[in-house]
Amino acid sequence: MPGTNGDGRRVFLLVHGAWHAAAHWNRVAEALNRLGHRVHALDLPGSGLDASYPDSYLRNDFAAFASAPSPIGAVRLADYRDAVVAELQRLAPSGGVTLVGHSFGGLAITQAAEAAPELVDRLVYVTAYVPAAQANGAALGALPEGAASLSGAILVGDPRATGAMRINPRDGDPAYVENGRLALYNDVSTEEYLRFAAYCNPDLPLAVAFDDARGTPERWGAVPRTFIRCTEDHTVPLALQDRMIAEADGLTPGNRFEVRTLPSSHSPFASMPDRLAEVLVSL
Amino acid sequence: MPGTNGDGRRVFLLVHGAWHAAAHWNRVAEALNRLGHRVHALDLPGSGLDASYPDSYLRNDFAAFASAPSPIGAVRLADYRDAVVAELQRLAPSGGVTLVGHSFGGLAITQAAEAAPELVDRLVYVTAYVPAAQANGAALGALPEGAASLSGAILVGDPRATGAMRINPRDGDPAYVENGRLALYNDVSTEEYLRFAAYCNPDLPLAVAFDDARGTPERWGAVPRTFIRCTEDHTVPLALQDRMIAEADGLTPGNRFEVRTLPSSHSPFASMPDRLAEVLVSL
Repeated sequence: MPGTNGDGRRVFLLVHGAWHAAAHWNRVAEALNRLGHRVHALDLPGSGLDASYPDSYLRNDFAAFASAPSPIGAVRLADYRDAVVAELQRLAPSGGVTLVGHSFGGLAITQAAEAAPELVDRLVYVTAYVPAAQANGAALGALPEGAASLSGAILVGDPRATGAMRINPRDGDPAYVENGRLALYNDVSTEEYLRFAAYCNPDLPLAVAFDDARGTPERWGAVPRTFIRCTEDHTVPLALQDRMIAEADGLTPGNRFEVRTLPSSHSPFASMPDRLAEVLVSL
Repeated sequence: MPGTNGDGRRVFLLVHGAWHAAAHWNRVAEALNRLGHRVHALDLPGSGLDASYPDSYLRNDFAAFASAPSPIGAVRLADYRDAVVAELQRLAPSGGVTLVGHSFGGLAITQAAEAAPELVDRLVYVTAYVPAAQANGAALGALPEGAASLSGAILVGDPRATGAMRINPRDGDPAYVENGRLALYNDVSTEEYLRFAAYCNPDLPLAVAFDDARGTPERWGAVPRTFIRCTEDHTVPLALQDRMIAEADGLTPGNRFEVRTLPSSHSPFASMPDRLAEVLVSL
């Protein structure tokens, strides 16, 4: 089978969401590895080991940080796409990868599958953005089904000035920390949340949210796909997840989402990594 | 072949050093994955997604941080050993793992191989501590061949008060940042160093450096092993690397180190990840 290890074992490529990085997947990667699969988590451009930080952030000058231009403000969705496609080609040149995206990573995997559908066996959206009737991440986030999202409470600065949707993972104010936990990790303890928050990046490049992220029915829409709904998600509310599923299925009625559900916050890779891995392997 | 994917492809378990975490291996893991191998990087207890941070660190109160007790001060070398052995058992219950340790991770892989030599095909010490004639990490670090080490310049606080060998990855003072780069990552740019520094943990539990880390010739000493020398290392100087190789070979003259050399700083996973991966695969 192309892209597998020749014995039914599979290849997974894991793509993080906004403010996150490859490191956040480590528990899921461990579980997939343990089950005999090859798995890699990617740092998208400007994230993780490819991040860049405003000097004010590194100096803990948070007043200046709130208006500092983002050093990754020039990153576009096409850069995300190209990074994912290049990794697909490196991991499995003859195709067959299960390509998993979380949250904003849904835009990147959509574009990668549009560019190289022959390399992807299945797309998996983990409470992830699916552009179909809506053109981009900003439009998806503005839908009425997303109005209950709590993630706006952790934004700092003016995106038009910074060029980024910005958070401050180094702000230790207990109220700010708790807002982050409630939005992103509401089913883990504060201590556990702080471990994941320590690995977050401050900036999501603004352009990534406004670039057209849609695929076509003929290319992206021909790849089998799964949506993993997270019922307790306070960043991408369940109603928004369900609307995205419905809109994508409306675009490709002959290739609808396989739908799974986890009783998780926005971050099942933190709160239930083994269950998430089991779902990924079962697809 | 036990522990492989049944087709000659191998299983690698990567163990980080002091202040580091699984995340730092990501580029090496990518390269190994690309070459068709299964690979997992582990967070040792108290590190990475298992870290805990003093409140003062999270509040950026660095004066208080310098004397705050470490929340991971109770972690012992036996905890490291148990975590590595458990991961070996999960990844490859019938054995065959190539077990790679960097720097202080050498103590953990030595203890793991002593506990479960049947699970390890080969030990790889990447400019890593090898206890043999010396009992523990503290004794190794105190050898005259280590006197040129620059890593002392980044320590903060009194280990007897904090219970940890402590650094401050969030100290943005340019002189402190440059001392960290020169000690640990002297062959990468400051911007690149900051990416890796952002993922560092502040505390290495002090007891880990004083617990007896030696293996026996019969168990640890029977496992094939490789040492990857790093010629430009300013944390574990080359003279100390060579003394550790010689002392271990003196303990097990019938099973000597295979020795490789890279023209790298202490952190080849940052400066030359593809070359490091090629060496690992060639063993």
